Amino acid sequence: MSLTPDQQAEIETLRSTSVPTLRAVSEGMEAHLYKAYPVLDHGFVRVIDYMGDDAAICQAARVSYGKGTKSVQNDEGLIRYLMRHWHSTPFEMCEIKLHVKLPVFVARQWIRHRTANVNEYSARYSILDREFYIPQPEQLAAQSVINNQGRGEPLSAEASARVLEILKGDAARCYDHYEEMIGKEGEPDNLARELARMNLPANIYTQWYWKVDLHNLLHFLRLRADAHAQYEIRVYADEICKVVADWVPAAYSAFEDYRMGGATLSSKALDVVKRMLKGEDVTQESSGMSKGEWREFRTLLD
Amino acid sequence: MSLTPDQQAEIETLRSTSVPTLRAVSEGMEAHLYKAYPVLDHGFVRVIDYMGDDAAICQAARVSYGKGTKSVQNDEGLIRYLMRHWHSTPFEMCEIKLHVKLPVFVARQWIRHRTANVNEYSARYSILDREFYIPQPEQLAAQSVINNQGRGEPLSAEASARVLEILKGDAARCYDHYEEMIGKEGEPDNLARELARMNLPANIYTQWYWKVDLHNLLHFLRLRADAHAQYEIRVYADEICKVVADWVPAAYSAFEDYRMGGATLSSKALDVVKRMLKGEDVTQESSGMSKGEWREFRTLLD
Amino acid sequence: MSLTPDQQAEIETLRSTSVPTLRAVSEGMEAHLYKAYPVLDHGFVRVIDYMGDDAAICQAARVSYGKGTKSVQNDEGLIRYLMRHWHSTPFEMCEIKLHVKLPVFVARQWIRHRTANVNEYSARYSILDREFYIPQPEQLAAQSVINNQGRGEPLSAEASARVLEILKGDAARCYDHYEEMIGKEGEPDNLARELARMNLPANIYTQWYWKVDLHNLLHFLRLRADAHAQYEIRVYADEICKVVADWVPAAYSAFEDYRMGGATLSSKALDVVKRMLKGEDVTQESSGMSKGEWREFRTLLD
Amino acid sequence: MSLTPDQQAEIETLRSTSVPTLRAVSEGMEAHLYKAYPVLDHGFVRVIDYMGDDAAICQAARVSYGKGTKSVQNDEGLIRYLMRHWHSTPFEMCEIKLHVKLPVFVARQWIRHRTANVNEYSARYSILDREFYIPQPEQLAAQSVINNQGRGEPLSAEASARVLEILKGDAARCYDHYEEMIGKEGEPDNLARELARMNLPANIYTQWYWKVDLHNLLHFLRLRADAHAQYEIRVYADEICKVVADWVPAAYSAFEDYRMGGATLSSKALDVVKRMLKGEDVTQESSGMSKGEWREFRTLLD
Repeated sequence: MSLTPDQQAEIETLRSTSVPTLRAVSEGMEAHLYKAYPVLDHGFVRVIDYMGDDAAICQAARVSYGKGTKSVQNDEGLIRYLMRHWHSTPFEMCEIKLHVKLPVFVARQWIRHRTANVNEYSARYSILDREFYIPQPEQLAAQSVINNQGRGEPLSAEASARVLEILKGDAARCYDHYEEMIGKEGEPDNLARELARMNLPANIYTQWYWKVDLHNLLHFLRLRADAHAQYEIRVYADEICKVVADWVPAAYSAFEDYRMGGATLSSKALDVVKRMLKGEDVTQESSGMSKGEWREFRTLLD
Repeated sequence: MSLTPDQQAEIETLRSTSVPTLRAVSEGMEAHLYKAYPVLDHGFVRVIDYMGDDAAICQAARVSYGKGTKSVQNDEGLIRYLMRHWHSTPFEMCEIKLHVKLPVFVARQWIRHRTANVNEYSARYSILDREFYIPQPEQLAAQSVINNQGRGEPLSAEASARVLEILKGDAARCYDHYEEMIGKEGEPDNLARELARMNLPANIYTQWYWKVDLHNLLHFLRLRADAHAQYEIRVYADEICKVVADWVPAAYSAFEDYRMGGATLSSKALDVVKRMLKGEDVTQESSGMSKGEWREFRTLLD
Repeated sequence: MSLTPDQQAEIETLRSTSVPTLRAVSEGMEAHLYKAYPVLDHGFVRVIDYMGDDAAICQAARVSYGKGTKSVQNDEGLIRYLMRHWHSTPFEMCEIKLHVKLPVFVARQWIRHRTANVNEYSARYSILDREFYIPQPEQLAAQSVINNQGRGEPLSAEASARVLEILKGDAARCYDHYEEMIGKEGEPDNLARELARMNLPANIYTQWYWKVDLHNLLHFLRLRADAHAQYEIRVYADEICKVVADWVPAAYSAFEDYRMGGATLSSKALDVVKRMLKGEDVTQESSGMSKGEWREFRTLLD
Repeated sequence: MSLTPDQQAEIETLRSTSVPTLRAVSEGMEAHLYKAYPVLDHGFVRVIDYMGDDAAICQAARVSYGKGTKSVQNDEGLIRYLMRHWHSTPFEMCEIKLHVKLPVFVARQWIRHRTANVNEYSARYSILDREFYIPQPEQLAAQSVINNQGRGEPLSAEASARVLEILKGDAARCYDHYEEMIGKEGEPDNLARELARMNLPANIYTQWYWKVDLHNLLHFLRLRADAHAQYEIRVYADEICKVVADWVPAAYSAFEDYRMGGATLSSKALDVVKRMLKGEDVTQESSGMSKGEWREFRTLLD
C-alpha cells in the first residue's frame, strides 16, 4: 500500500475528531472509519461513511410488516427470517461508502455491478501514479484445465520469474512513455492526458469512491468473495467482509449462513437428495443430471 | 398529523440521545432528524437518517478530477460547476432516508421514481388505520381547460360541500366495512387482510421508509416541487426542499439556480432569442414554433 | 375480461398483418402476440412486443465467453450452464413488452419490481372505467394463522356472501360518486380528475404497458408465481409463465429446474443433509435450526 | 475495421433471410440490421436487434394519457410534446441492441452509463486479438489550457511522430509478451488468461453487446455526441445517431431540437436575457454570474 505521509496524517486527523450525532451509530464500524486496509501490493479499502446498522434493518422491516413482525421476537431472529425469505428491501436501508484503490483490470470486473454509485479518478483530468500490480510469485498459475476460466496449477519457478520480468519491464516502459508524452508543464507538445492514458497497461492502479446499499453489497460479496472469483478481486471482497461483519453483525451472520455457506439445489438435485435419503444409491446416470451438474452436486455433499 | 403520544415521546427520546461519530455531520440536518413535519391533514415527512454533506460532494468530485479541480477555488464554486455541467455522480454520494406518511394516490405517483429504496407498510400483514385525506375546500378545483391534466377554477361553495360530503361518507363506510370483513381476533370468518384492503379508497393513508441519493432526490424535487405537479404531492416536495436546504446548503442553492429557477430552451427557442436580441420582432408564425411551444416560450420571458 | 368489439377487431387486424423482418423471430411467441389472455374477472395480459429468443441468449454469452463456451456443445446445455451459475447478463439480452389490465392493489405489489419500464393509464388525464375486481367465492379465505400474511381456511358461505355484498355495494357507490364529482363535459363545477380518483377503492382496474428484460422477468415470476404469492398476482404470473415457455423454451425449462422447482439450503441445512445421508437421525433440537426453519426444511424434503 | 471474411459472410447471410413477424417494424432500421459501420481504426457499431418505432412511443403515451392525448393531433406532435415536457417513460418503450467493438479506454467511459445491459468479451475465458487503437496524426493534440480536460492545439509533426512510435511500439511489445505468457496449448507453464491480460494497454480493442432503451440511449447520445465529449467516444455516438435517426425519425428530430441543439439557462441567465431584451446592456459584472458562467452564456447567444 502506498499512502503518503500526508494521507496518513489526514486519516489520523479524521479519526481523532468525533462529533455528536443523533443518527444511528454502529460502534463496530466507527472503529474502521477512514482506516486504509492494504489489499494486494499497492491497493487498499477504506470506509468513508456509512448509514444504518442492524437495528435500522429491523426498523424498516417493522414499517413494512407492522404488528405482523411481533411474532419474531428479537432483531436477530427477524434478520434471519428476512434473509431466509429473500425479503431484500430492509437490507437496502443501510448504505456504505468505500474508497478503494485497485488495478484497472479489477475495476473493470467490479463495475459490472451496476446498482452502485461511483466516482473514479479521471485520467482525462489528472495524471495517474506510477503504481502497478505485480503478483506475488505464488499467485502465478496456469489456465485451469477443468474450468474454462480461472487458474490451475502454479507455474514453475523459471516461468514465474519470466512472467514477473515481463510485467515489471512493460509497466516501467509504458509508464516512462506515458510521462514522456504528457511532458512537462509549460513546455510545448504535451499530449492530452485523455490520449496519453491509452498507453497504460491494465495492472496500473486507479481509485474510486464506491457507494452501495447493504443488499447489493452482499450480492457483490457472494459473487466476489466466492472461491471461484478471481483472486485479485476476492482479496478486496474478503477485506470488505471483515468490515461488514463488524458493521451489521446480525445481518452478516445470516448472510454467512444463508448465502455464503448455503447452496441452491435444482429441482433434479432436490429429487436426488430425497431418493438418497430413502436409501437409494443414485448415480450420475440415474440422476438425470449432466456430468458437470453431477460433479458440482457431489462436491456440495462431500 | 396524527402522531400518538407514544410516537411523540419516541421522537423526543431519539432527539435527546446524541452519540459521538467520526463521520461527516451536517449541523443543519441534525436539527431536523426524527422530527415529523406535518403535510396535508394526516401526513408527515421525517428524516430518519442521512449520509454526507456539501463537503462530501466535493470530496468525491476531487477523487474524480484530482488536481484538475484545483482551479475551482472553493467548495461552493465547485458545486455550482458540477451542477451546471450535469456532473451528477458526486451528488449521488449523499443519501437520505425519510419516513413519509401519505395518501395512497400520492404514493402511486411517488413510486414512479424507481431509483430509490422503499419499505412500505404492508396491508397484507397489518391493518391500516382509519385515516383518510379530505382536501381543504379551497383545494377543490375543476379540471383545467388549458392542460389536459391538473386543476383550473375553484368549485362553487355548494359543489365543494357536496364533494366533501361524498369523500367523508364513502371513506367512513368503506372503512367500517373493511373492519367488519377483517373481524375480531379469535372469531371465525375473518377475511384475510390481503383481500379486505381492496375495499379501501385511494385517499387512505399509508406510510413508508424511502431512501434515495441526493442526485435522484433533486430530480424528484424538480418534477414534484414544480408548479405543474399535483398539489397533494407538491406539498411533500416543498417540505423536503426545506430540509435539503439545511442539509446541503451549497448544493441546494445551485439546484435552485440551475434547475428549479432555470429553463431549457429548444434549438428553435434559442434561435428566436438571438433574433430578438438583434432587434427582430418575432411572432409565433415567424418563430417556427407550434402555438403550445410559443405560449410556453413567452411565459418564460415575461 | 372486457374487451370492446373495437379492441377485439384491432387485435384481429394486428394479428392478420405480418411484415418481413431480418430480426430474430420466436415462432412460439408470434402465436401469442397481441392476444388478450383473461385473468381474474376483468383483467388480461397481452404481449405487445418482444426482442430475442433462446439463440439470442447464447449469442450474447458467446460474445462474453468466446471460444471458452465451445465446450458446452449446444444451446440448451449452455443455457442450463448459465442459469445454474447465475450468469444473468445473457438473459438480459431478451426483452418483452406486456399490456396488462389489473386491479390497483395488484398493481401496487407489481410495481415494487423496479427494474422495468412502465406506462400506466393516468387517472389525472382520463376517466377510469367502472370495472372492479370481485373475487370468486372460493377465493374468500381467512387470514392465515401460520404465516403472518396470506390466506388460510375458506370463509363460511354466509360470511362469503356478506363480503361480496360489501365489495359490490361499496364499489358501485364509490364509482357513482366518482362520476358525480367529475360531472358532465361542459357543465360547471366538475371536480378535477386528479382529485376525484381518490374516492375509488383499490379493486378498481387500471392498465399499463410493462416492459422488462428476461432476467428480471424470471426474477418476478419466481416470486410471484410462487405458492406463497397472493393469489391475485399469482394468476397473472402463471399466465405470463405460459407465454415465456413458448417464447424461450430452453431458458424457461432451465428456470423451472433451477429456480421454480429448486431450493436454497442454508449452511446449517446443508450440514444436516450431510449428517442425514450418513445415517444420523437429526431432530430440530440437534439441527441448530429454529422451529420455523426446521418446519420449512422438512417440507422441502417431504 | 477488421471483420474476417467469415464474419462478413455471416452478416450477408443474416441480411438475406427475412422472416414474417406480427411485431412493429421500422423500415429505416431494417436497412441497418447487422451491418458493421466502421469507427476508428478497428472498431465498429452494429445493430443486432431493436424493439418498437415512433408509433410504439405514441401507443405507450396513449395508454398513459388516454383520451387526454387526443388534443395533440398526430404522432409527431405528440412526440415533440413528450420530449419538451420531459415525459420520458414512453421513450423507454423502445429498445436497441448493439454490437460494438471499441478500445478499452473508451469502454471504460461508456460503462459509466449504468442503465443498460452489457455482455463483454471476457479476457478470463478468451484471448484478445492483436488490435490496438492508434490515433490518426491529426487527432494528436495537446492538453487544453481552457478546460481542465480535453484537447487543445494539435501537436507538431515531430511530436506526433514520436507519440505514434511510442504507441505502436509499446502495443506490439506488450502483445508479444501477452502471447508469450499465455503460451501454446498443450505446453506447460501457460499463464492463466485472467492474469496475462493485465499486461495489455488501454488502447487494445474489446467488444460487447450493449442493450439500452431509447430514453437512456438519447441521454447517452446527448452527453457523448456533444462537442465536449472525448473524440474517441464521440465518433461512436455520431454513428449511433445516424442509426437512431432512421429508426425513430420523429423522436430523433425532437431530440435534436430540444436536447442536442437546445440549452439550459440558469435562473440568473434567464434573468439576464429578460434584461437584455428590455434593452439593458448587461456585463459580466452586472450579470451576477461567475466568469466561467458568463463565458459559457455568451457562447450560447453568439
